Amino acid sequence: MSVVESVRWSADGGAVDIIDQRLLPGTLLRRELRTVDEVCDAIRTLAVRGAPAIGVAGAMGLVVALAPHAEEERESFLAHVDERGARIARVRPTAVNLSWAIDRLRRVARATDGNGRAIVGALRREATHILDEDREMCRRIGEHGLALLADGAQVLTHCNAGALATGGIGTALAPVYVAVEHGRRVAVFADETRPLMQGSRLTAWELAQAGIDVTVLADNMAASLMREGRVDLVIVGADRIAANGDVANKIGTYPLALAARHHDVPFYVAAPWSTFDPATETGHQIVIEHRAADELANNFTAPVSPRDVRVYNPAFDVTPAALVTAFVTDRGIVHPPYRFDGDGHADSPPV
Amino acid sequence: MSVVESVRWSADGGAVDIIDQRLLPGTLLRRELRTVDEVCDAIRTLAVRGAPAIGVAGAMGLVVALAPHAEEERESFLAHVDERGARIARVRPTAVNLSWAIDRLRRVARATDGNGRAIVGALRREATHILDEDREMCRRIGEHGLALLADGAQVLTHCNAGALATGGIGTALAPVYVAVEHGRRVAVFADETRPLMQGSRLTAWELAQAGIDVTVLADNMAASLMREGRVDLVIVGADRIAANGDVANKIGTYPLALAARHHDVPFYVAAPWSTFDPATETGHQIVIEHRAADELANNFTAPVSPRDVRVYNPAFDVTPAALVTAFVTDRGIVHPPYRFDGDGHADSPPV
Repeated sequence: MSVVESVRWSADGGAVDIIDQRLLPGTLLRRELRTVDEVCDAIRTLAVRGAPAIGVAGAMGLVVALAPHAEEERESFLAHVDERGARIARVRPTAVNLSWAIDRLRRVARATDGNGRAIVGALRREATHILDEDREMCRRIGEHGLALLADGAQVLTHCNAGALATGGIGTALAPVYVAVEHGRRVAVFADETRPLMQGSRLTAWELAQAGIDVTVLADNMAASLMREGRVDLVIVGADRIAANGDVANKIGTYPLALAARHHDVPFYVAAPWSTFDPATETGHQIVIEHRAADELANNFTAPVSPRDVRVYNPAFDVTPAALVTAFVTDRGIVHPPYRFDGDGHADSPPV
Repeated sequence: MSVVESVRWSADGGAVDIIDQRLLPGTLLRRELRTVDEVCDAIRTLAVRGAPAIGVAGAMGLVVALAPHAEEERESFLAHVDERGARIARVRPTAVNLSWAIDRLRRVARATDGNGRAIVGALRREATHILDEDREMCRRIGEHGLALLADGAQVLTHCNAGALATGGIGTALAPVYVAVEHGRRVAVFADETRPLMQGSRLTAWELAQAGIDVTVLADNMAASLMREGRVDLVIVGADRIAANGDVANKIGTYPLALAARHHDVPFYVAAPWSTFDPATETGHQIVIEHRAADELANNFTAPVSPRDVRVYNPAFDVTPAALVTAFVTDRGIVHPPYRFDGDGHADSPPV
């Protein structure tokens, strides 16, 4: 089995080598980002997407964009770090991983003695650390989640919390990849995930690339699949997890949790520990982003809604903690009752 | 308020005048069907859709297709009735309303004395009866359902069980139209209804035509809307209702019922009495049609799923009777416990 690598160093180390996710599933095109403009464009246009992957690509992108200035003096080089770092972080201000990763590089730059050449070397090592840590985090989630997937397991997932969204083997999909590595047969049902279709376009593609059995369904079909007894467990990712365990994730997660509860199907949330936000008491404090009407009304060949009709298009929903069977994290599996208090991981990325 | 008429006689009576639903919501084109080929094409290509509307259009279509033969002798004319009726009924063999309506005309033809001219007159009256009965059925459902819709009611619906699907003001939407006629303010949330988008394309369009407040949402967003307290009741149509009250309807109905139950939102099923099928004991006996993978995988501008990935694409689902608050029928509102036994309505169309 080979899992796709969405973000990596190019062979010569002079570029960030990404999969252009805009062209999937039709075309697999790897793109080499070498300038700050190319890095910003790739993040802005969702060529690279998924909070962990954006953080990794942003950090690596800052390094390659600084390489041409390696011969400059310290102060001049540090000014480039600040200016280019700020440009990259600005591209998706709500993607906290991005500003977190850029800040981490800026701190390393200031803490490193010497001129541009010395600093750019330290930054390259730090960006590689960020990539490696992300890979390690995914791997640990996968290993902790392995116990949930018996041979022959049928797993339902939503959106894309896989290799394409991270530097490693994903979060929700990590247990699937690890189980397959262990020789277990796993079949995945991928909700298409309206409106942007990350499930049918991305999750189905990356699983098919790895030779894993995958079936696409519309979001409104998942409850029927459970009623037929064809889902052993649900695993989804998370954007933010409140202190009480309420989970903000891609819109459509919540009705899956309701259907799973009704059918006694376990509902697991896989996420790095950094996703748990002790500062958010419950899901009611999480403000949900509403997106453009056109995403729903106009993304087929012809308009699918009348021109003047209102559209309700939230990007995320909140699943109450009471519907979550367990959390699968890089630190282990967490069972109810949930209480996620601050534990000093402020330096971890809020993925 | 003016409700669209999806099927009616043309001004000169020589054609069936339909709205071509394939072009909605972008273009309102009325089409006059005058020949058996035109009638068959319109039904085959879903220019006219919805079980009641297909039955009405098929019957009226047979009449106009026979008019050129009105001067023929009785036996010759009856042969045309059989041949053309069979051609029309064959177009959508699973649409029971269609064969039911054509059979009704064939029986009237045999029972009518005289030559072609006499028979075609009787057939025109019978087809008009079928249209009028359908309109009357819708109206009664609407009047029985009126009590469910207080002023300011916010209603969620799925698919299209409206005027476009019937000869009249619809089934699920009939209470909405009647409430608006009574001066009540009603806001409708229309699930887009993947994969074929009957909600965003058709329900949103016909409600907007009538000046009724309508908002489109993806199917996976309905549970969030309920969690926000923005849905007072759900009303959906039905394809078949088992003796115990289990409801087969468009895929995506079942998760709505689960979410409604979780949020204490009433979940109503509006259907003509003829939809209740005493011969089907429970929903488990209902065989669900699975449709082509391309409907899910390929109906955007570019493919949304990888080429070789499997697709799960059931057209309908079954909602257990326990999740249905009440049935709104042309004979009144039916509350639990449900027991729909045979009562001799075999001559009614199984809509």
